[in-house]
Amino acid sequence: MSRPTLSIPGDPPSDLWVGDLDLPLLTGLTQEHDRVAVLADQTVYQLHGALLGPLADSPTHQVPPGEECKDFKQLEAALNFCAASKLSRRSMLITLGGGATSDLGGLTAALFKRGLTVAHITTTLVGQVDAAIGGKTAIDMVTGKNLVGAFHMPRAVFADVRFLETLPDTELRAGLGEVVKCALLQGEQALQQLEQDAAALIEGDRDALERAVRMGAGLKVEVVTEDPRENGRRKLLNLGHTFAHAIETCTGHGTVPHGIAVAVGLKMALDASQSQGILTDQTLPLRLEQLLLALGLPASVAALDLDPCPSASDLWQAMAHDKKGAVGRPEFVLLAGPGAGQWDIAIEESVVNELWNL
Amino acid sequence: MSRPTLSIPGDPPSDLWVGDLDLPLLTGLTQEHDRVAVLADQTVYQLHGALLGPLADSPTHQVPPGEECKDFKQLEAALNFCAASKLSRRSMLITLGGGATSDLGGLTAALFKRGLTVAHITTTLVGQVDAAIGGKTAIDMVTGKNLVGAFHMPRAVFADVRFLETLPDTELRAGLGEVVKCALLQGEQALQQLEQDAAALIEGDRDALERAVRMGAGLKVEVVTEDPRENGRRKLLNLGHTFAHAIETCTGHGTVPHGIAVAVGLKMALDASQSQGILTDQTLPLRLEQLLLALGLPASVAALDLDPCPSASDLWQAMAHDKKGAVGRPEFVLLAGPGAGQWDIAIEESVVNELWNL
Repeated sequence: MSRPTLSIPGDPPSDLWVGDLDLPLLTGLTQEHDRVAVLADQTVYQLHGALLGPLADSPTHQVPPGEECKDFKQLEAALNFCAASKLSRRSMLITLGGGATSDLGGLTAALFKRGLTVAHITTTLVGQVDAAIGGKTAIDMVTGKNLVGAFHMPRAVFADVRFLETLPDTELRAGLGEVVKCALLQGEQALQQLEQDAAALIEGDRDALERAVRMGAGLKVEVVTEDPRENGRRKLLNLGHTFAHAIETCTGHGTVPHGIAVAVGLKMALDASQSQGILTDQTLPLRLEQLLLALGLPASVAALDLDPCPSASDLWQAMAHDKKGAVGRPEFVLLAGPGAGQWDIAIEESVVNELWNL
Repeated sequence: MSRPTLSIPGDPPSDLWVGDLDLPLLTGLTQEHDRVAVLADQTVYQLHGALLGPLADSPTHQVPPGEECKDFKQLEAALNFCAASKLSRRSMLITLGGGATSDLGGLTAALFKRGLTVAHITTTLVGQVDAAIGGKTAIDMVTGKNLVGAFHMPRAVFADVRFLETLPDTELRAGLGEVVKCALLQGEQALQQLEQDAAALIEGDRDALERAVRMGAGLKVEVVTEDPRENGRRKLLNLGHTFAHAIETCTGHGTVPHGIAVAVGLKMALDASQSQGILTDQTLPLRLEQLLLALGLPASVAALDLDPCPSASDLWQAMAHDKKGAVGRPEFVLLAGPGAGQWDIAIEESVVNELWNL
């Protein structure tokens, strides 16, 4: 078996391969299991199902594309599919799709018979740098994103950037929002590389994309290895996300793609870092704004051009019920500079008001 | 805080108190949490809700009595209740009810925001010696019991035998089925004590019940401490259960109460232990039969008086899809003698046929 690109230690480990999908390797992994089934985003399945080779003969359950699949009805249907496919605890569920698909499939695998093995063939940039890695799974509730979920580490993740060629432009840009977050957390070198690659990335250059995936996935693997249950350092990965989730909640999920909301959230997190006196690298906010611009991403709520535009108070209400933090006391990740994040920082409503009016 | 009767180590530990419900202690525990909510079996709530004292002012969600609450619709409703009660990861959910209630409440707590604290006030004998302890949670699917679930350790379990006074007779006897299982696994001394206490137990004698709860819960705590994820020794607790689950699946869940099915399953497990040459204590099958009789429990499928009675082949089919074991290869726990169990033992269909015709 070829060596994984990255690996989260465990028994068994959670291995990640970046590069062309190695079908013999995946087939080899399935042979350690008594049965195999596939849970696939229907759009991705139509475009790329053939890439599964002999695995395409396995029982397959198609789910609605994107975030639409992350609800209770779909979870129940996926679990019924596992039962109908007579999967055991020693079976393997393979997901084919983006972050929403691996979230639903991962939760299904966590719950069926209290846990079977899952592997993700992750086909979006958000999936490849973030969602499919590290075992966080979830579905949405009407009252908020990812409110129902579990930790369930995938046995294997396959990140092949060729899948990104068929990704709608908005989805690619949304993924770049997460890539920017990773670079800010990774440090100066990663940020410079991303600034250099910006033009190539929005043109879908394969080498630039693979560099970005390696960088982002590398950060995620490193952080998750250190703190799998998000008791400490893993919280760093929420940089920009408390703001982003609030934007998504206020506008109704699906209106603003997650990664686009993250782009805006990153800028708000830097502004908050500045207003709280945490930011030491004063060039960073402008530098971030230019990078987001170069990647075709918005750097402010105004740039989202929302109608109606949520108020600062709406945003605060949504943040006050974020999963992280106690009720009424949302917690934020702020930055001192590239690679220098701090977590568990409470901000007052008045600060959020100011940011909103910037 | 008074010392727990038993404790499963962890951070925090999972503490169990056997005895009169210590309300100040429970209230003290809730004060470590930002909010408290209650999920209660509606029958138990009507009978005993007042025992919650000041906690009765917390948001409360009543669920249908017994196994009826263990389905998808109820899980979704319970999660919506958590959202409506604005619980955070630092909140505590308290369940009040039997094993089904703690199963549903435990799974709800495992999934809401990927996990909040749960405490069980467990009001049935099955709950007190088994279901509420050790963190296994689940709901049922049409195709089988407990097919959807998670491991989520309760922070605290309160086992007060006064609740058993209002338990229907069938429920008490069902619980005694689990108590017999515990004694068989615990060893000669526990078995002798149970034989002595049999008459007092079916009369609902409080001291005898508390002895049985301490013995059963003690075994469970010991085994779960050693093997929390059921990779090895925890499987012992499934003694009689592969047979019992098959009986329940074949007759439709709810027709034969779980603990009653376990009583029959225990006798089948001993017969299988004998036919496989594992049993060294040849007096045990008859001794078990007499103990079951003394406790008003059936010792054979025939004694269940089912119409229609499932065939050996129906039973085998159900066992072949048990959660434990690979597909088509059910695994059993067999006994050499009191306190001497063995797990992961495969039995052929022909052996099951013979047992059926005994």
